[in-house]
Amino acid sequence: MSEAARRLSYGSYLKVDRLLSCQEPESLKTGAPAHDEMLFIIVHQAYELWFRQILHELDRIQADFAARTVADEHLGRINAGLSRIHEILKLLVGQLDVLETMTPAGFLEFRDLLTPASGFQSVQFRLIEARLGLHDDARIRIDEQSMRERLAPEDRDKLSADTNPSLLSQLDAWLARTPFVALGDYSFRESYRVAVIAALQRDATSISADPALPEPQRQADTAAIEQALARFRALFEPDATTSTWRMSARAIEAALFISLYRDMPVLQLPFRLLQALMDIDESLTLWRLRHALMVERMIGVRPGTGGSSGSGYLKATAEKHRIFIDLFHLSTYLLGPRDLPALPDALRRRMGFSYGAA
Amino acid sequence: MSEAARRLSYGSYLKVDRLLSCQEPESLKTGAPAHDEMLFIIVHQAYELWFRQILHELDRIQADFAARTVADEHLGRINAGLSRIHEILKLLVGQLDVLETMTPAGFLEFRDLLTPASGFQSVQFRLIEARLGLHDDARIRIDEQSMRERLAPEDRDKLSADTNPSLLSQLDAWLARTPFVALGDYSFRESYRVAVIAALQRDATSISADPALPEPQRQADTAAIEQALARFRALFEPDATTSTWRMSARAIEAALFISLYRDMPVLQLPFRLLQALMDIDESLTLWRLRHALMVERMIGVRPGTGGSSGSGYLKATAEKHRIFIDLFHLSTYLLGPRDLPALPDALRRRMGFSYGAA
Amino acid sequence: MSEAARRLSYGSYLKVDRLLSCQEPESLKTGAPAHDEMLFIIVHQAYELWFRQILHELDRIQADFAARTVADEHLGRINAGLSRIHEILKLLVGQLDVLETMTPAGFLEFRDLLTPASGFQSVQFRLIEARLGLHDDARIRIDEQSMRERLAPEDRDKLSADTNPSLLSQLDAWLARTPFVALGDYSFRESYRVAVIAALQRDATSISADPALPEPQRQADTAAIEQALARFRALFEPDATTSTWRMSARAIEAALFISLYRDMPVLQLPFRLLQALMDIDESLTLWRLRHALMVERMIGVRPGTGGSSGSGYLKATAEKHRIFIDLFHLSTYLLGPRDLPALPDALRRRMGFSYGAA
Amino acid sequence: MSEAARRLSYGSYLKVDRLLSCQEPESLKTGAPAHDEMLFIIVHQAYELWFRQILHELDRIQADFAARTVADEHLGRINAGLSRIHEILKLLVGQLDVLETMTPAGFLEFRDLLTPASGFQSVQFRLIEARLGLHDDARIRIDEQSMRERLAPEDRDKLSADTNPSLLSQLDAWLARTPFVALGDYSFRESYRVAVIAALQRDATSISADPALPEPQRQADTAAIEQALARFRALFEPDATTSTWRMSARAIEAALFISLYRDMPVLQLPFRLLQALMDIDESLTLWRLRHALMVERMIGVRPGTGGSSGSGYLKATAEKHRIFIDLFHLSTYLLGPRDLPALPDALRRRMGFSYGAA
Repeated sequence: MSEAARRLSYGSYLKVDRLLSCQEPESLKTGAPAHDEMLFIIVHQAYELWFRQILHELDRIQADFAARTVADEHLGRINAGLSRIHEILKLLVGQLDVLETMTPAGFLEFRDLLTPASGFQSVQFRLIEARLGLHDDARIRIDEQSMRERLAPEDRDKLSADTNPSLLSQLDAWLARTPFVALGDYSFRESYRVAVIAALQRDATSISADPALPEPQRQADTAAIEQALARFRALFEPDATTSTWRMSARAIEAALFISLYRDMPVLQLPFRLLQALMDIDESLTLWRLRHALMVERMIGVRPGTGGSSGSGYLKATAEKHRIFIDLFHLSTYLLGPRDLPALPDALRRRMGFSYGAA
Repeated sequence: MSEAARRLSYGSYLKVDRLLSCQEPESLKTGAPAHDEMLFIIVHQAYELWFRQILHELDRIQADFAARTVADEHLGRINAGLSRIHEILKLLVGQLDVLETMTPAGFLEFRDLLTPASGFQSVQFRLIEARLGLHDDARIRIDEQSMRERLAPEDRDKLSADTNPSLLSQLDAWLARTPFVALGDYSFRESYRVAVIAALQRDATSISADPALPEPQRQADTAAIEQALARFRALFEPDATTSTWRMSARAIEAALFISLYRDMPVLQLPFRLLQALMDIDESLTLWRLRHALMVERMIGVRPGTGGSSGSGYLKATAEKHRIFIDLFHLSTYLLGPRDLPALPDALRRRMGFSYGAA
Repeated sequence: MSEAARRLSYGSYLKVDRLLSCQEPESLKTGAPAHDEMLFIIVHQAYELWFRQILHELDRIQADFAARTVADEHLGRINAGLSRIHEILKLLVGQLDVLETMTPAGFLEFRDLLTPASGFQSVQFRLIEARLGLHDDARIRIDEQSMRERLAPEDRDKLSADTNPSLLSQLDAWLARTPFVALGDYSFRESYRVAVIAALQRDATSISADPALPEPQRQADTAAIEQALARFRALFEPDATTSTWRMSARAIEAALFISLYRDMPVLQLPFRLLQALMDIDESLTLWRLRHALMVERMIGVRPGTGGSSGSGYLKATAEKHRIFIDLFHLSTYLLGPRDLPALPDALRRRMGFSYGAA
Repeated sequence: MSEAARRLSYGSYLKVDRLLSCQEPESLKTGAPAHDEMLFIIVHQAYELWFRQILHELDRIQADFAARTVADEHLGRINAGLSRIHEILKLLVGQLDVLETMTPAGFLEFRDLLTPASGFQSVQFRLIEARLGLHDDARIRIDEQSMRERLAPEDRDKLSADTNPSLLSQLDAWLARTPFVALGDYSFRESYRVAVIAALQRDATSISADPALPEPQRQADTAAIEQALARFRALFEPDATTSTWRMSARAIEAALFISLYRDMPVLQLPFRLLQALMDIDESLTLWRLRHALMVERMIGVRPGTGGSSGSGYLKATAEKHRIFIDLFHLSTYLLGPRDLPALPDALRRRMGFSYGAA
């Protein structure tokens, strides 16, 4: 242990003095200090600290994904990183509980002093969105301007340097490489197609065979089966021009396989990974709505300091800025246990651990 | 203490045996028990227990409000009741954290067995919405049917018996009776109108007087002032045919008065009451979105068991089924401390406590 | 709006660059970066930000209390400040959820580099404790050293400058001034003493009169009544040499009065204030235990980096470092509604609002 | 789908009517209904519902563990079950947030009516404790009676039927069977012993070699190394008569191995399992303290309705009724990455997946 380390103190390690020199309320400069401005500053600074941590986790997760093959040894820590991001996002929602102890009138005491600064300009948050996979052209435009056009030039540069490829595209590539969906004679796609058709036909037969079923119900049930059939057909024969999926057909197929056979030892961590991505998408969405409601409560229908439409804009992002939405929609295509085709034994063995192999 | 009471035990007091006889998984009857169905039942039963508690709180709150004048002695317990409802709603969001430990495939093992039962049919939840103030005609319709039309006849009856008047209309009547907004010579409406116009004129003057302001900015700022003026005019001279307010003009006026002069002793609890109602509206909205996301995750874009469009319907309720939205919009109309007119001394004294009166 | 303000940006307002320059992992300097050290730094810096906010709230709360009489206009904002501190403390517990995503092995990668820095040295946290009312001599000693002795000299100075008087002593003085406990003919102490004795005698009589009561139960019940009587006697005639109360007898008496007659308009906010102080005490205690468990999980029974006994020390602080414990113990002395003496009418009127006075 | 299922409604599926017939406030029978008694009943019934769910999860987890070898296919669902229990326990803490909206005076309105019923008598909670692994003789005694002696005879029977073996003992047996800790030439115990001694000797040498180190510091550092050596010796050569471990030496050794080499594919889920058990132990402990604080707040230092010492007893259980404490203490024995011996290549291969085997 070096002499320097021996002298390390809590304050010097954490740069507490510098950290506590970062709060400079604008209202203080006007001579009419607004009590709640400190809270406003602190909560946003705490956000920036946590954004930094999220980016730090994404650094390792994306580096692990960037390898030609994602090492089995790394899946555990990828999942741990995603879980940590999820926990952080839950905390960020909790921070709004604190911010909401500010009243609208308390906010009004200093709000005008902040124009035209706006939370919109948080470069770290834009980076997180972009690195997760929110594409510029999927973003809601404000006054017909894209997000990038509304940023200061230097912030725009920071954003461009560091966002390629996104986690979503890395995930796509990784899923598309899943070896088990087509191995030797086995084709998951074929096996599943057969099972789906069999299940739907059985349902159709049981409807025809039920004399007690009132005619309107019979028609409704039959229509539902036709719809289901159409949905599955679109899944198996995706048409690039009409598809609403963001991920590639191969990735969707693999994600479905993982969800269905999640108990196979080799799929347990990949399944957990897909769940963690949905957790992140969901908690981000909840944070957006919560943020929108808080803004609505603070300023009503006034426009935001940065010129956006305020709470309306934020609500729209909760609706539209979903990143891993495909994983949510995947549930539409799950067959229940009664209909799920069994995996061939040889495949099952390959999906187990070495030590257990005969 | 009676003999009977002496023999009271935890189990007999809480009817634990009866309570634990209420879980009858459908999948058990089919001979293929689905592990997660118990969770599904338990979480919904826990919801119903908490709904009962919310209704119990509304019973007292609404009885207190039903008095010709709401007793000052009761304001504390009304606020306590509203805070309790808020805490319960937060807990209900937390219950979704537990429910989300169920995977879509786990749900699929028993989901079909539940048709056509649907969470939509929770009479207690419909009652809570109605008693808070969600009007039937403000509700989203499903397949062109109103909520009532979709309920079973006996449930419809339960709903009709017990929802008049709603807390929203009681609140409106109570606010409209606030004595201080017009007392002797003092008229809050006049006093505030003058202050608003003065503030907006000052802003307009400072824009004209700034030679450095680029012309487009000057136009934008001027337009913003015009808009603000129009907003305030609509507040002071509400036109019944175009108004988007749900509450009466007198109630809106009083709520604004309370928000502005919230530190006056007599207004501190009423202000807290308005905040508590917004807390409830907000947490109910968050629960709706959270519920919608969970459903999306569980079943994708399939329709709900009860025939609704599933997660899409639930998302729409988060957007549209707001009850105390007027209180959120009120923030639009607050003046900052620099512009807020002072209350006359005589009025201030009347708004204080007896013991302090000269 | 000045030119300067017009140019304000999110980054310049919040000093984002400076804020994000405060993270300097020690492990980076050794050439073997430990991934989790960033989390360790961020979470502690987030703590320091929130500690600053707590101190900011205490600034105003204590200033409001420092006035000769606490203005009725200020009670609302005092309560709001205490509620905000409570929300912050809940958030700090939530931060441990994030920190616990670090594994013990992850911590071990950099822990030795931090010696002898220790969370013990957080001056802001020591200040919060001291300003709330944790006295130096009530603190647990480490290696027979007091907390101050273990701090660096410059930190000791910061601590001394700013902690007198504590919120606990301000609360005591404020409670002791409560006018209503003895007003004209009315003495709460006398009135309550009579009611307590009557209630206990009634219980004793009903025990004697119950022939079915088994002798051991009779003796136990009688002993319980004797104990209760002794407890109340100690409350009414506090003996400075044996009292375990930290607050003065007059303050205890007033706090009891407020708790019993909390619905009186003039007491509603004071009652809420006492509850808020208990909320703070409780959430601080929970944070301490949670912290202790996390440390136990991270380092087992090793000593802390700063030389304390690690998790054992922290657990002891959860037990002993209670500040508003008297308020919790007060519940021991409440009479139920059946036994509570009514307030004289004249007193009731004085405890209402001016506008309602005849 | 059968006719019966088609007629299933929300109310009939969930037995809503029966569920809502279980709330019978005692105070109602006395003619003086206490408003808060409903909350008291509801919160306890919600607890019992969730306890049932925890027991349902334990049923499957323990059945999976009861197999001669725990199937790799089942590890994912065991972990999911433990995570669900953890989420439920967090929810139960949240329920106390709701219960604490009751004031002590509100509780006093009906508390006496409940004697001698007591939360102590919750058979389901006693079952959860016992099935997790809290042994009767490790429990705190009340009035020199064991927990079982204080239960009613019929409750005692329920408890005896269903608690053998506990999850703790199943965990012990499973860990003790871990194949990798001694395989062919490889002995984890030997390999780790060598590494520990080498690391401690290196530290000792660096202390001797540092001329700048003040003598008292040198002595303290040397003593710390001696202590560490003694700790490790006790780990490797456990003495049954002095050991404070609850688990067997083989189980401890395997748990340490898993914690150290957690990134090996075959150990990732076992590591997650150990973490989940600590999560459960920790959240149970937090619930106990939180419960104790709430009781202290409600009744001060009065005894509990069931005759226990009230909050003091509950605090003691938070301290003593720890179940998986050994896993926490394990962290004491981890070596950092610099000192951790590498696994032999052949062993590493056996700990990977089949598909990757050469």
